Amino acid sequence: MITLHHLRVGRSVFTVWLLEELDIEYDLKIYLRDPKTNRSQADLKAVHPLGKSPLIEDGDIMLAESGAIATYLLEHHDPENRLSPSRSDNARWAEYQQWLHYSEGSAFLPLIMNMLLARETDPKPPVTSAFAAGETKLHLDYVRDFLADKTYLLGEDLQAPDIGMGFILTMASKVVGLQNYPTLEAYLGRLTQRPAFARAMERPGG
Amino acid sequence: MITLHHLRVGRSVFTVWLLEELDIEYDLKIYLRDPKTNRSQADLKAVHPLGKSPLIEDGDIMLAESGAIATYLLEHHDPENRLSPSRSDNARWAEYQQWLHYSEGSAFLPLIMNMLLARETDPKPPVTSAFAAGETKLHLDYVRDFLADKTYLLGEDLQAPDIGMGFILTMASKVVGLQNYPTLEAYLGRLTQRPAFARAMERPGG
Repeated sequence: MITLHHLRVGRSVFTVWLLEELDIEYDLKIYLRDPKTNRSQADLKAVHPLGKSPLIEDGDIMLAESGAIATYLLEHHDPENRLSPSRSDNARWAEYQQWLHYSEGSAFLPLIMNMLLARETDPKPPVTSAFAAGETKLHLDYVRDFLADKTYLLGEDLQAPDIGMGFILTMASKVVGLQNYPTLEAYLGRLTQRPAFARAMERPGG
Repeated sequence: MITLHHLRVGRSVFTVWLLEELDIEYDLKIYLRDPKTNRSQADLKAVHPLGKSPLIEDGDIMLAESGAIATYLLEHHDPENRLSPSRSDNARWAEYQQWLHYSEGSAFLPLIMNMLLARETDPKPPVTSAFAAGETKLHLDYVRDFLADKTYLLGEDLQAPDIGMGFILTMASKVVGLQNYPTLEAYLGRLTQRPAFARAMERPGG
């Protein structure tokens, strides 16, 4: 059985959501943040040297990186291609790969910068602030325009990259707000109204 | 034929290197940075709304994200599993996935923060500076310890994630230096001494 090492509260709840969408049986091992630093503690570092979460364990395999974990879970638990396209559809499969990598590989970076900058006293550092603001707008505009009037990123059905994008937009709504992006707010609403998302939020104990 | 949209000077030279390792025929379309801002210009934004590079074009497909591009190229051009493991070796394939996602998904973030912080005047913003320094050390220590006395990340033979790591360590050597990491310096030396790397550096015109 898959074990998810789950640091609360944080991004690994989105891996719980993926497990729920895939309807896989899994164990959760819960870790708590240091109340002073808000970082992980020695218990999680004993499992993996980076002390980050999500981590999944499957027999002898211990795997980090949200995108790699999604790829692994889909390879083994999505034979009917419910959340990932078949490789035989090359254009769709390529687009899926881009969006699977995009959330952690590109979109996350300016958001965590904004989060750190909010904790700096004024005056904010100008170079970093300008970079974070410009990149945040660039990425949110890009996702909005790509999504357009589609229900999910790749069309009518939820696919695995929507879950990574759910993490990004949840963070964006907290850090910079989505008031200027009604398309993205509505999409995030569709994501968080899914029954599997609700189960993920309840499963770790609220 | 694959076309690589290649913004100079930047990370897409590592995609050129992957193409050279795979011995694929490809076209390069060269784009130059704005000399004032050091960012991409309207010509690249006309190709893709993010205006970032690498981008590959294959018939009707236009693909962004270094990791997605690597996955796409290997799916179509590595049938003998020279640079990627077979899916039948589950443990090795999982480890490969982690490292393919790791360079852009985790290791890049503190390095670009350091790059921006170097351009800020003193005093440097304390929260962002502490985060960038701590994460840089965490990741460089992790890669050093994982590499240990292996030739490449996954053993004796170069695999695709070594190319992403080549980008990370090239950036790390410029931004923070690798003097305290002789293991990583030696590994970067092995990477940059490969004939395909030399061809990649020569191909765009020096």
